[in-house]
Amino acid sequence: MTQHSEKNIRFIKLTLEYDGSDFSGWQLQPNCRTVQREIEIALKALIHEDVRVVGAGRTDAGVHALGQVVSFRTQNLLSLSAFERGLNVFLPEDVRVVRTEEMDRPFDARRHAVGRTYRYVISKQHRVVGRQYAWYPRMVVSLEPMRRAAEYLLGEHDFTSFCKSNSSSDNVVSRVSDVRWDETDEDLRFEITAVRFFRHMVRIIVGTLLEVGCGKISPEEIKEIIGARDRSRAGPTVPSRGLFLVRVDYDVVNF
Amino acid sequence: MTQHSEKNIRFIKLTLEYDGSDFSGWQLQPNCRTVQREIEIALKALIHEDVRVVGAGRTDAGVHALGQVVSFRTQNLLSLSAFERGLNVFLPEDVRVVRTEEMDRPFDARRHAVGRTYRYVISKQHRVVGRQYAWYPRMVVSLEPMRRAAEYLLGEHDFTSFCKSNSSSDNVVSRVSDVRWDETDEDLRFEITAVRFFRHMVRIIVGTLLEVGCGKISPEEIKEIIGARDRSRAGPTVPSRGLFLVRVDYDVVNF
Repeated sequence: MTQHSEKNIRFIKLTLEYDGSDFSGWQLQPNCRTVQREIEIALKALIHEDVRVVGAGRTDAGVHALGQVVSFRTQNLLSLSAFERGLNVFLPEDVRVVRTEEMDRPFDARRHAVGRTYRYVISKQHRVVGRQYAWYPRMVVSLEPMRRAAEYLLGEHDFTSFCKSNSSSDNVVSRVSDVRWDETDEDLRFEITAVRFFRHMVRIIVGTLLEVGCGKISPEEIKEIIGARDRSRAGPTVPSRGLFLVRVDYDVVNF
Repeated sequence: MTQHSEKNIRFIKLTLEYDGSDFSGWQLQPNCRTVQREIEIALKALIHEDVRVVGAGRTDAGVHALGQVVSFRTQNLLSLSAFERGLNVFLPEDVRVVRTEEMDRPFDARRHAVGRTYRYVISKQHRVVGRQYAWYPRMVVSLEPMRRAAEYLLGEHDFTSFCKSNSSSDNVVSRVSDVRWDETDEDLRFEITAVRFFRHMVRIIVGTLLEVGCGKISPEEIKEIIGARDRSRAGPTVPSRGLFLVRVDYDVVNF
């Protein structure tokens, strides 16, 4: 608690779970039900302050989170457990604070994040129960070629081919540190960890890997698609309902 | 196809999956969105007939089905696969026909059923993702006493203690042929198979078994509660969202 001009400022870190089905995504937008808005409304109700919160991942409409991280500052003296219980009283049933921590230095959930992990769930069957949490592509795919293809994503790349075209970012370079495909009785799950993600990046990657999985393109072509830096070379954007922000990582020393 | 005065009547059996969250249950009710109503609307759209369908289990509002069975009669000549695909085009996304069969004799999904299996899912944690499909009781329960208690339900009993009070049935005798508790990383699952179930029966049984699980009553007391034939002796009715109609069994010879 040194170095700060404002006295007694507390730096709070919240970890959230939410069901994105009925949200227009994370970020504040006029006249839209967004997760950020719900959190800020609940904070206002709890501590009677207009607090601006920062989220680590700007999840799109329909995208879920098991571990979104949010930061905000306050001078309120409420205990951490009272923050958590109080927010969960005011939050609607599709968002929930699952962990509340206090940092000893200024903390920005977005800028200080060093890694984000997303999961995409592909259903093996057309499902009604749980349809909000998986996508059924109506085709048979092989896991092994998709595993080999995913390996080409590892490392630092320009991800232009896997970004929504005309998205505003200039710099679309990221470093992918981990990719994996898992299979359960009911579904196939793709997990990817990277320093940062751009608009629709995971959903376009999955759409492209599925083209490998059904034999439309070879695993090696992923390399060329990355190199082309051309959105039209990659596969379609798969629906948001299969996508989960699983975890956000911080450097323990520098956050 | 003998013995019938009406010629060319076909006896169709449908197996349905549905998400009960947004339904006022199975059965037709004025001004309510029910599964039966959606099936009949879809049939009307597909074959232009006013068909009355019979469901094997009258699931309550909020109860899901993985294998509800439905019967109806028609003289329409559509192939079974055209029935299935056609109905799925007209049905909303929270109901789906998963199997379509034709029986060679008059078939009544309700009267000919010889067993029904229900599952109740208890979440170990407060969950947001998947909250529609499990109930979180906010208490710690032990599985072993609940397993022992459930054994007392096996066999033929008068289930008055486990029926909604002032429910209309006179005869509340059923035969329970199977009970089991399973545990996964995320939840506890209770499955029960019986010839027939009465209003709220599974939900009251689970509410009572949870009282055993948290130590409020002993496993042996289930025996006395059954014997008392008094609803007030049993535990609370747990919420419908954890309940699934899993399967309906028919005798292969007599349906």
